[in-house]
Amino acid sequence: MTYKELVNHIFHKESFLCTGLDPELDKLPVHMPRHMDALLDFNEQIISHTLPYTVAYKLNTAFFEQYGSEGWRVLEETRKRIPSDIFTIADAKRGDIGNTSTMYARAFFDRMNFDAITVSPYMGEDSLRPFLEFKNKWVIVLALTSNKGSNDFQQLEYQGFRLYEKVLESACKWGNPDNMMFVAGATQTHDFKAIRALAPRHFLLVPGVGAQGGSVNEVAQAGMTPDVGLLVNASRSIIYAGNGPDFATRAANEALQLQLQMKANIQSMRP
Amino acid sequence: MTYKELVNHIFHKESFLCTGLDPELDKLPVHMPRHMDALLDFNEQIISHTLPYTVAYKLNTAFFEQYGSEGWRVLEETRKRIPSDIFTIADAKRGDIGNTSTMYARAFFDRMNFDAITVSPYMGEDSLRPFLEFKNKWVIVLALTSNKGSNDFQQLEYQGFRLYEKVLESACKWGNPDNMMFVAGATQTHDFKAIRALAPRHFLLVPGVGAQGGSVNEVAQAGMTPDVGLLVNASRSIIYAGNGPDFATRAANEALQLQLQMKANIQSMRP
Repeated sequence: MTYKELVNHIFHKESFLCTGLDPELDKLPVHMPRHMDALLDFNEQIISHTLPYTVAYKLNTAFFEQYGSEGWRVLEETRKRIPSDIFTIADAKRGDIGNTSTMYARAFFDRMNFDAITVSPYMGEDSLRPFLEFKNKWVIVLALTSNKGSNDFQQLEYQGFRLYEKVLESACKWGNPDNMMFVAGATQTHDFKAIRALAPRHFLLVPGVGAQGGSVNEVAQAGMTPDVGLLVNASRSIIYAGNGPDFATRAANEALQLQLQMKANIQSMRP
Repeated sequence: MTYKELVNHIFHKESFLCTGLDPELDKLPVHMPRHMDALLDFNEQIISHTLPYTVAYKLNTAFFEQYGSEGWRVLEETRKRIPSDIFTIADAKRGDIGNTSTMYARAFFDRMNFDAITVSPYMGEDSLRPFLEFKNKWVIVLALTSNKGSNDFQQLEYQGFRLYEKVLESACKWGNPDNMMFVAGATQTHDFKAIRALAPRHFLLVPGVGAQGGSVNEVAQAGMTPDVGLLVNASRSIIYAGNGPDFATRAANEALQLQLQMKANIQSMRP
């Protein structure tokens, strides 16, 4: 997907919601059986019901990998259930030496046709480069994550710059707003000004709304660009909004509530 | 596996060789068919022939994931072909917020019974913690990697410390030599003194010998502890030593050559 297609989709739906699919057998609605086909059915119903309010889906690979190769089959099948005009993110946090990153790019871009993959920057430019060589595909680089551990290294300061700022500065030289985004946690809006100073136009993938406590309005006020430039993710608060037979309707309602907040923010920036 | 069992195995075999399994259909010996069962057969023959000289196998998940869920099935089956007294490493470079890292730990420790997994430290303590809660399992933290991009962030200096040193210092507080190792590239032996100053007893997993140009003797001289404390990995130089019907014998010979160098280093440290 291109930058322009993504932006158009956001303005058309008046939403910058990314729905995160972190499925677990133990958390399926109580009436559903505990097997892999039910997991796929659950994902499919979540997708079809949240689709009117969602511009992106983020599939967290860990939740599928916990079920081994059968889980990977559900990952592949879930990806296929997402319509082609929707932005798809493999939340995989990969990153390795060049020839290995090429294999990951093949796995997620070629084989499964994801639009984007999340990547850890620790191993530097040559670990990101292979992902940037795929046309109309995106690498989403971890910058400032939503968890407590983001203070351990990402906030380390040297020569007046913090590590996550150095990551932003360097990565902006390797990619551009058409093929690179950054992860910036919704719990970190106090640092969005510093992030936007270095990456004024790049999309930010913002996890941490919902279960982790971040707010759509705060994120929008701190991080929005003229093209919106945000994909705000909620996972557990949407997909586990209900655990009865109406789970998909309740997930849709949760997504709608977030979309309404996003719509208000999008409209307020227009004259 | 415990620290003591690993050390005993190293002295018994007079080897600290880790054989890296990075299988690709396109690189299979010319007489083998290009399908998943052949990939498993290839891995199985490499394992059985290199076993006398090897104390660990490292399976690079990217090379399996490029083949999707079928590749994951081969990953699972390959793991099962490795005898239980051999140290097994999932070279997965994972790491995410706590509940997601727990899923990765389940995938690789519980489901597939790997002894260890490689993890990127960028997201900090709570991204590593879930892996440390499994008994007799190991997290192998990226410290100073073998690739060119290791200069981009790992070597950044602040307050007299470089980032990889800060990672070592912090991680040594979170884990101990019984459940944590560090990745230190064979191309980085000039920095092994600094690494050993911070982690004098931890095992180092050392990639970069062979195809990437590092040397066993240099690594041994720079990084050995009284318990050896090294797992030196070679992947391509072993598994692709030959591409004819004798590929497994040639792989065994390549592993033997490395083991002989290791044996000399182990013997030279004993009175």
